[in-house]
Amino acid sequence: MIYLDNAATTKPCKEAIEAAVLAAEEFGNPSSFHGLGLRAEKLVNEARTSIADELKVNKKHIYFTSGGTEANNLAIFGAAESMKRTGNRVITSKIEHPSVIEAFKRLEKLGYDVVYADAERDGRVNVESVKNALTADTILVSIMHVNNETGVIQPVKEIASAVKAAAPKCIVHSDCVQSFCKIPVCPNDMGVDMVTVSAHKIHGFKGCGALYTGGKRIAPQLYGGEQQNELRPGTENVSGILAFGAACRTAAYDTDKMRKKRDLMRDELMRLVPDIVINGSNEYNSGTVLNVSFLGVKAEILLHSLERHEIYVSTGSACSSHKPQPSHVLAAMGADAKEITGAVRISFAQNTDEDEIIEAVEKISDEVKTIRKYMR
Amino acid sequence: MIYLDNAATTKPCKEAIEAAVLAAEEFGNPSSFHGLGLRAEKLVNEARTSIADELKVNKKHIYFTSGGTEANNLAIFGAAESMKRTGNRVITSKIEHPSVIEAFKRLEKLGYDVVYADAERDGRVNVESVKNALTADTILVSIMHVNNETGVIQPVKEIASAVKAAAPKCIVHSDCVQSFCKIPVCPNDMGVDMVTVSAHKIHGFKGCGALYTGGKRIAPQLYGGEQQNELRPGTENVSGILAFGAACRTAAYDTDKMRKKRDLMRDELMRLVPDIVINGSNEYNSGTVLNVSFLGVKAEILLHSLERHEIYVSTGSACSSHKPQPSHVLAAMGADAKEITGAVRISFAQNTDEDEIIEAVEKISDEVKTIRKYMR
Repeated sequence: MIYLDNAATTKPCKEAIEAAVLAAEEFGNPSSFHGLGLRAEKLVNEARTSIADELKVNKKHIYFTSGGTEANNLAIFGAAESMKRTGNRVITSKIEHPSVIEAFKRLEKLGYDVVYADAERDGRVNVESVKNALTADTILVSIMHVNNETGVIQPVKEIASAVKAAAPKCIVHSDCVQSFCKIPVCPNDMGVDMVTVSAHKIHGFKGCGALYTGGKRIAPQLYGGEQQNELRPGTENVSGILAFGAACRTAAYDTDKMRKKRDLMRDELMRLVPDIVINGSNEYNSGTVLNVSFLGVKAEILLHSLERHEIYVSTGSACSSHKPQPSHVLAAMGADAKEITGAVRISFAQNTDEDEIIEAVEKISDEVKTIRKYMR
Repeated sequence: MIYLDNAATTKPCKEAIEAAVLAAEEFGNPSSFHGLGLRAEKLVNEARTSIADELKVNKKHIYFTSGGTEANNLAIFGAAESMKRTGNRVITSKIEHPSVIEAFKRLEKLGYDVVYADAERDGRVNVESVKNALTADTILVSIMHVNNETGVIQPVKEIASAVKAAAPKCIVHSDCVQSFCKIPVCPNDMGVDMVTVSAHKIHGFKGCGALYTGGKRIAPQLYGGEQQNELRPGTENVSGILAFGAACRTAAYDTDKMRKKRDLMRDELMRLVPDIVINGSNEYNSGTVLNVSFLGVKAEILLHSLERHEIYVSTGSACSSHKPQPSHVLAAMGADAKEITGAVRISFAQNTDEDEIIEAVEKISDEVKTIRKYMR
């Protein structure tokens, strides 16, 4: 099997599995008053420390959630609710993950004044578009760090600095699900207040993520017990959290190496397959994703052809690929219909090796030839 | 170790651990379009079938959540939001779990007309109190099946039938976290529309639960991808869900046996320890919880004394026991201050055996004697 869909999800690492199994032994409820509970709580706090250390932040501002979607929703609805009296404008971009875009659509329905900033042809959010939308009463700006469909690194620092200049009280959030443990993610360096991370993109388990709140007072979106300072009640997903901590400690990313893998794949594809378009900047790329349009090819057909060789890639993002829809990201970047129809996302892991890339390129080249023959 | 805090959480069973580890092998994203994704989706659907079969309902109305808290919140906020134009009255009881009571407090702030029904001295919700609160514009009633602090089975069927007579469109929800896989839970027999269940109370993992919606159209509380019919977006917690399914299939509850365990503990305590009060009905009891007040004893002190013998019990519920607070359940039942201060919750699992119960009673008897001596 050649698994090149690591932006959708990754294979849990040995350390994560061991940590989840440990949680089944240390099974106390972290909220319990007795020693079994305290032991579970201590393990959860160790995982919290691992996430915080990686982000170089204070661990008391890390809140575990059921994943990136919940963390993004908590950031967005929590900030919008708590800042309601300060202002009404909220800004995001047209290339965010659905868990951000759909949350902002919901804010629109609730009466907030929402602006979706444009993207440029290279897949980066247009900084001027954000600046033009900024008003003194802007309360929330959410811009992702690395795009999930293209791997393009966004000008988050530049945007955050413009936001703070125009609206000092505005909360800046960044969805870092695709960048965490892949390129350096440091909220303080980036100038952002809140950051979303997810376990299953870094070889942890699905169903676990975290929001770093930067100490901002945001409104809870779940109501119940006193867990996690009442900002995120509910018994903690101890196995998922311990696995997340272990995966985070295990991740030894090397961005240069990742970029070389992506470059190799890109160069080989360009050498062997005619009529392709690489979507998104090569310069500003995390190295984890290569988005390629095979002109005259339907991406779904290519995906299924490759599957017969046990090569796994994707069309667009996993969260919407059950009913393949035209990519809103590529559309916002100004790609044309042919480029969007033929777009395949190839995404790498730390352990993806050169041989796999070379073999995948060969099979892609063969299959694209065949498909093009039949489609003519 | 004698673990008698099974209402707080249970030890994951072998089958659940194996299922979680399987999920780490079958690691595809259930939303992915390729075979790896479809295989993960199929496994998630098998777990969904197991939960649905246990409830004797249609599996398409089972939505996985991050636990009981989220499922209760989704039921309550989802129903209140979708039914807003139909009416404004919502009813719950004074003895619900915090994830229900706090959600209703939030509805109060949002302008809903909330009634908290009384409890009787035996720990059962007062049916008349619910009936008196019922109006034609009642849109939501949420009454738990088995109370988490006392194990008392609530008159859910009687209440549901009264609700449907007074307000046919009203959605009836029941928090069945403490009854699922412990006594029969059948929404159709109970006459309720929606039911909450949780994995970690039945030897699954923490961080996974489900809401059975009965096909009622409720409003989503998370926004994002298209997972779970967009009612509950976000990549599914596959390991937690598979473990939940396995735990559900493994559970072979025997309510009579559980009741006998509880009776044994109760009878032995009454025989050996003077000045105790059993809180809540013996007749209407799931057999899983024994709530006892040791008069003249501070429950926290007894809890820590027992811990030295590796016997684990709790004061109140786990979700609020980090800062022990007077039990709102016992207060609603009319217990006095002494009864509340001395209340300990002892909760059983299928594999709790007679010897453990006998040994726990001996140790409790000794420790209570010692504590009472020093407290005089």
